[in-house]
Amino acid sequence: MNTPLRPPLRLGIAGLGTVGAGVVKIVQKHRDLLTARAGRPIEITAVSARSKGRDRGVPLDAYAWEDTPEALASRDDVDLFVELIGGEEGPAKAATEAAIASGKDVVTANKAMLALHGQALAEAAEAKGHVIRFEAAVAGGIPVVKALTEGLAGNEVIRVMGVMNGTCNYILTRMQNAGLSYQDVFAEADKLGYLEADPTLDVGGIDAGHKLALLASIAFGTRVNFAAMEIEGIERISIDDIRQAADMGFRIKLLGVAQMTGRGLESRMSPCLVPATSPLGQLENATNMVVLEGDASGQIVLRGAGAGEGPTASAVMSDIIDIARGTRLSTFGQPAAALRPTQGARASAPAPFYLRLALVDKPGALAKIAAVLGDAGISIDRMRQYGHEATTAPVLIVTHKTTRSALDEAVEAMHGTDVLAAAPVAIRIEEV
Amino acid sequence: MNTPLRPPLRLGIAGLGTVGAGVVKIVQKHRDLLTARAGRPIEITAVSARSKGRDRGVPLDAYAWEDTPEALASRDDVDLFVELIGGEEGPAKAATEAAIASGKDVVTANKAMLALHGQALAEAAEAKGHVIRFEAAVAGGIPVVKALTEGLAGNEVIRVMGVMNGTCNYILTRMQNAGLSYQDVFAEADKLGYLEADPTLDVGGIDAGHKLALLASIAFGTRVNFAAMEIEGIERISIDDIRQAADMGFRIKLLGVAQMTGRGLESRMSPCLVPATSPLGQLENATNMVVLEGDASGQIVLRGAGAGEGPTASAVMSDIIDIARGTRLSTFGQPAAALRPTQGARASAPAPFYLRLALVDKPGALAKIAAVLGDAGISIDRMRQYGHEATTAPVLIVTHKTTRSALDEAVEAMHGTDVLAAAPVAIRIEEV
Repeated sequence: MNTPLRPPLRLGIAGLGTVGAGVVKIVQKHRDLLTARAGRPIEITAVSARSKGRDRGVPLDAYAWEDTPEALASRDDVDLFVELIGGEEGPAKAATEAAIASGKDVVTANKAMLALHGQALAEAAEAKGHVIRFEAAVAGGIPVVKALTEGLAGNEVIRVMGVMNGTCNYILTRMQNAGLSYQDVFAEADKLGYLEADPTLDVGGIDAGHKLALLASIAFGTRVNFAAMEIEGIERISIDDIRQAADMGFRIKLLGVAQMTGRGLESRMSPCLVPATSPLGQLENATNMVVLEGDASGQIVLRGAGAGEGPTASAVMSDIIDIARGTRLSTFGQPAAALRPTQGARASAPAPFYLRLALVDKPGALAKIAAVLGDAGISIDRMRQYGHEATTAPVLIVTHKTTRSALDEAVEAMHGTDVLAAAPVAIRIEEV
Repeated sequence: MNTPLRPPLRLGIAGLGTVGAGVVKIVQKHRDLLTARAGRPIEITAVSARSKGRDRGVPLDAYAWEDTPEALASRDDVDLFVELIGGEEGPAKAATEAAIASGKDVVTANKAMLALHGQALAEAAEAKGHVIRFEAAVAGGIPVVKALTEGLAGNEVIRVMGVMNGTCNYILTRMQNAGLSYQDVFAEADKLGYLEADPTLDVGGIDAGHKLALLASIAFGTRVNFAAMEIEGIERISIDDIRQAADMGFRIKLLGVAQMTGRGLESRMSPCLVPATSPLGQLENATNMVVLEGDASGQIVLRGAGAGEGPTASAVMSDIIDIARGTRLSTFGQPAAALRPTQGARASAPAPFYLRLALVDKPGALAKIAAVLGDAGISIDRMRQYGHEATTAPVLIVTHKTTRSALDEAVEAMHGTDVLAAAPVAIRIEEV
């Protein structure tokens, strides 16, 4: 290791938004530090973005400009293609394929592309002896891909859990702390520029679901199977739910859980009640948290900023420096061709559920609901009717442990009665 | 990466205590999983420990036995020497040197050896193109060496903090939760077998100090300088301190903090008051927590089991699999020969302090103490006298922000008065 410096690692960076500009800044600012740590200089050869003229707060004159990411990906003077364009298809995917075809390694922050096409892309790269790394795609600045792929490599992974969408956690904690409705906070977040162009990717749980699907693949040695995930967003969480949960000592989080069972891979991304005093319950604002459970390591909890220029660029740099140092890992921790296909399995582990109902305000309504639950074999831990709203009676029920399918059947049967004024809200209570 | 399996990585394991036996168990139990992840089989060739006959709960018949770790380290059929003997000198160091001399990589869990001899050992290994890795030496199962060396490699590290001695945290939280004195909990821990043969390594802050010194070296690119660390143990923390701190919304933790300043490396391992609601404040029992602050990543918090068979063996396996995969990193993240020497700098950042005094119970005693503080330019945030004990008056003071040196001068001056019934206890209040 006292050998003279190796030749520079030459980067081509496609996409100069917040993260891309952040990476350029680090390469410029920490030139000597990066050289010392990587054992070779890390240089930018060429860049590409949609609009050439825009001021991005960093000097780009020293780099060649390409009008298309595909052209950038094919340059002979680029060793490593850094894909920071985003989007599951389109230019990001085309350029990544071009980079692989022209014999380059790839670093990407693109969770959507990998969740849907990661298997094919990784197989293509690995067939040519190249690597695709994606630390920045999951949980921003938290080195969770590394912790799981490398730090826990000696473990059979039991379970992966996480709050991995900052926007959702911001909305939920802001509702809690300011007593505002979902709609009010959503409008506020929109005004502050916190929302993506398509906010359903965030609030619908899809973005966080992409991230969980990638972690599950590493954890269980299975092909990425995003389609098998049960996904539910936070759009139906009301300030009432937040308040009732808080009254009982809980917080509502958009929580991802993945675990392997004999029936296949259980993976779900959905609102859950977690104890207010637990690390997950205390997670405020846009912070992310991932919990990794190994058979030897026990529970490892990682917390940090899940988005933003610095944290995401830090994660991109981690992959770049790994490759500069000569670390060459398979995208999912073992060769993509060796990953096992897996089917999705409906979550079957019983759990208590929180159930919020709006009943028609007439005698016997509550009795009908209680009867339906009894018929489904679901016993009630707590039930309360908490003040009338015009003609409907809001009712809150916490069940004893039951399965999601039993609960869904009961909710289905409730719709068959004449006492529901609105569709019930059912939220799993997770022991974390 | 779809190439056929590479030849096995052959391990020689020296030391078959809890951790050594744990590593053997994982290698045996997860043979296929490890092969899939490493891209080659991981095999044990030979082992060594003090007593051959002892039952360690794992079959060892398939491995060659060496009576000395040095003989094990020199075997031709061992690629990687796994040092799990412990101790800063003696057989662990001799065997590690033998392994390097005979051209082997080394994985060790030995924080004491590396804190005192890491520079020389890493230089020797790197001069021959070999690596020494030590994930298990710091914070047990938490992949913190990896997170810092690799995950945050694109960052200038601002600060490293951590609660990294499970025994101390167990004692402090047990005192808090059971209302027991330090002496009672210490005796209890001893009876339960939680203490090392020399418990001052734990309760004196030395073990945690070793760990912090190693992290500081990686973080700041400096030679390990354990001698420069300010170390204070938990032996003088009383149940009174715990209670008073709790009353004010704090917990007492043995906290390590390392940061680079213009004057040199500030590093200290000492009892601190931290907010009870902070992640560090909520850390219970033997759990460890490390906080890494990078200029781009922001604050990354890692939490997990800091000791025990499974977690520590998991960390050892992480290093072994890295090496099996072909990842070859310098011990401290850059070549040891390039690490800068650094001097220790007294912590100069002002902080509020908690000060517990036992005053002689006579008129004017408190006035004299207040005058001493005023003369030292230290202003008082809160002061209270909280009930008499025979002839002494316990007094609690929380200062506004001041420096450690100003406080030490004031305490020195207090000793010059005639009102102290016992030496004051001063504990820094850390904003975390």
